[in-house]
Amino acid sequence: MKKIIIGLSIITLLASCKKETITNSSDSSETKTSTNLASWSDASKSRIETWVKEVTDSTSANFIPVADRIAVFDNDGTLWTEQPVLSTQFIFAIDNLKTLSKSNPDLLKDPVLKGVVNGDFEPLKKAGIPGILKLINTTHNNNQTETEFDDAVKKWMTTAKDTKFNKTYSELIYLPMVELLNYLRANQFKTFIVSGGGADFMRAFAEETYGIPPYQIIGSYGEAKYEIVDGKPIIRKISGAPFIDDKEGKPVAIHRFIGKVPVFCAGNSDGDQAMLQYTSGSKYKSFGMILHHTDSIREYAYDSKSYIGHLESALVEAKEKNWMVVDMKNDFKKIFSFQ
Amino acid sequence: MKKIIIGLSIITLLASCKKETITNSSDSSETKTSTNLASWSDASKSRIETWVKEVTDSTSANFIPVADRIAVFDNDGTLWTEQPVLSTQFIFAIDNLKTLSKSNPDLLKDPVLKGVVNGDFEPLKKAGIPGILKLINTTHNNNQTETEFDDAVKKWMTTAKDTKFNKTYSELIYLPMVELLNYLRANQFKTFIVSGGGADFMRAFAEETYGIPPYQIIGSYGEAKYEIVDGKPIIRKISGAPFIDDKEGKPVAIHRFIGKVPVFCAGNSDGDQAMLQYTSGSKYKSFGMILHHTDSIREYAYDSKSYIGHLESALVEAKEKNWMVVDMKNDFKKIFSFQ
Repeated sequence: MKKIIIGLSIITLLASCKKETITNSSDSSETKTSTNLASWSDASKSRIETWVKEVTDSTSANFIPVADRIAVFDNDGTLWTEQPVLSTQFIFAIDNLKTLSKSNPDLLKDPVLKGVVNGDFEPLKKAGIPGILKLINTTHNNNQTETEFDDAVKKWMTTAKDTKFNKTYSELIYLPMVELLNYLRANQFKTFIVSGGGADFMRAFAEETYGIPPYQIIGSYGEAKYEIVDGKPIIRKISGAPFIDDKEGKPVAIHRFIGKVPVFCAGNSDGDQAMLQYTSGSKYKSFGMILHHTDSIREYAYDSKSYIGHLESALVEAKEKNWMVVDMKNDFKKIFSFQ
Repeated sequence: MKKIIIGLSIITLLASCKKETITNSSDSSETKTSTNLASWSDASKSRIETWVKEVTDSTSANFIPVADRIAVFDNDGTLWTEQPVLSTQFIFAIDNLKTLSKSNPDLLKDPVLKGVVNGDFEPLKKAGIPGILKLINTTHNNNQTETEFDDAVKKWMTTAKDTKFNKTYSELIYLPMVELLNYLRANQFKTFIVSGGGADFMRAFAEETYGIPPYQIIGSYGEAKYEIVDGKPIIRKISGAPFIDDKEGKPVAIHRFIGKVPVFCAGNSDGDQAMLQYTSGSKYKSFGMILHHTDSIREYAYDSKSYIGHLESALVEAKEKNWMVVDMKNDFKKIFSFQ
């Protein structure tokens, strides 16, 4: 119940957060097929497979050598649920602050942090971006070691549950997208995450959850410091100017971390538009994909009127560039494996 | 001849650059063995193989799961020659400046750049670090696109030759180290470069030269900018505060780019000491390696008295930490494949 209140408060906090609800009905097309894309509608499956077969056929004019088969995926709203609050990582930040404040009550002398812990987001709202940075620095970049942070996320992921489905967050990954990751890897694509979420946060669960190793996970990141304490080398996560892996930051991060232009890109919001464009600029025949959240029953329905995962201009460009728009209500036979 | 003069000038420029010459004789132990580490002495080969066999044996207490088999290699002086000047990339910078100044003579109005092109390094010396940054920004981060820079490096790599061996720089890679990269990969290690050199510079040749893809190449890097020009998405390399992937920067970069503590690390200078320490801090039984440049005939001999590839404190710590010190004169049956 408390989480629902927190969720609602965050939504209130975000002035432009008005979710568009799309009428939905339960999906009846659960027929299993023999391919690896079993949870996709026939039409969407066929479109993906046609492209993959073409670009992996060495006799095709559109053949892509294995070394250049780079596939990038956004995470929040593309591989797992990002609703109903700012992101799963935001919930982690709040939960982590509660834990930290038990051993360090002085943290709650700060009105912003005290408010967050008590479900009162007004001080955070008033503080704006510096308030958000304070929350992130206190819970993520507070001189803890990389191991301590990793352990904290791993522990949280096994216990914290979402408010709508009462599931752990690693259960809220999209089954069809996991199938797609596996299908692309089976066709010798390298799969990368390129997300606005924190790299260290994602790395704590993504290897087990998606089969994507840490060095193929690109996200926002803060500063870090190397030191030796009692003869043991450690990396500390420290506060400082963060790199934000969103919007135009995504192609920059791809350049910095991957060093190749992707040939496949999947996203779900305008924050992914730049990396979709960048992918379309590949010298190869590329594939762009946008997940359109159209299923208010099995997940959430939102696009242009939502602050979280705002999708508007990318949808317009999708038509021009022929990116595949996945209608989650109709194209996903299943959304989550537990459904 | 001009290059020799440039080389000597740079050496003069670096106040502490006094190379220690170690007496050498030609190496006679060219006997080929049947293993993949054919160019290594029996003792060094055995030491490497013993560790690899132990940590890849699933019944061993020191078994390392495949997902955690991260091997990191310095580049300059560890995978290829870094002598006789600051680095191969420095020579590229000078050559590139000469090319750029043909179409843009105004560049040479700057006394530092004019000096560099004419082999007069006094202005650069006087300017210090800002002078070096001016050279790097002019030749690397001058608003060119990632593709333009990549093409320039690739072209240069096929034509420029070093002064001692009259070979292209990609021929100056160490054969035993290439064998080691292949041997580790055959045992399911992921091989990464973690070098002070520019990431974009290395990525232009390292995939072909070492079999290491761009996303496993970590180096120093500058700022980049995403934009659309005439409908085409591009990344521009722009000037700004660079990240220097050296010394304590190396473990920080490993944290940022790899997200796992390596279990194998090879370097050749004090600049690699921090990442060797970091590797030794692994929860697994790790392997540290230092190349000691002891062969003035077949390559170069230098260590504590050299500015380039200065090796002093890491050699002391190697004894404490039991890192393997490779005596290149005696442990490398061949240094380059052309020898």
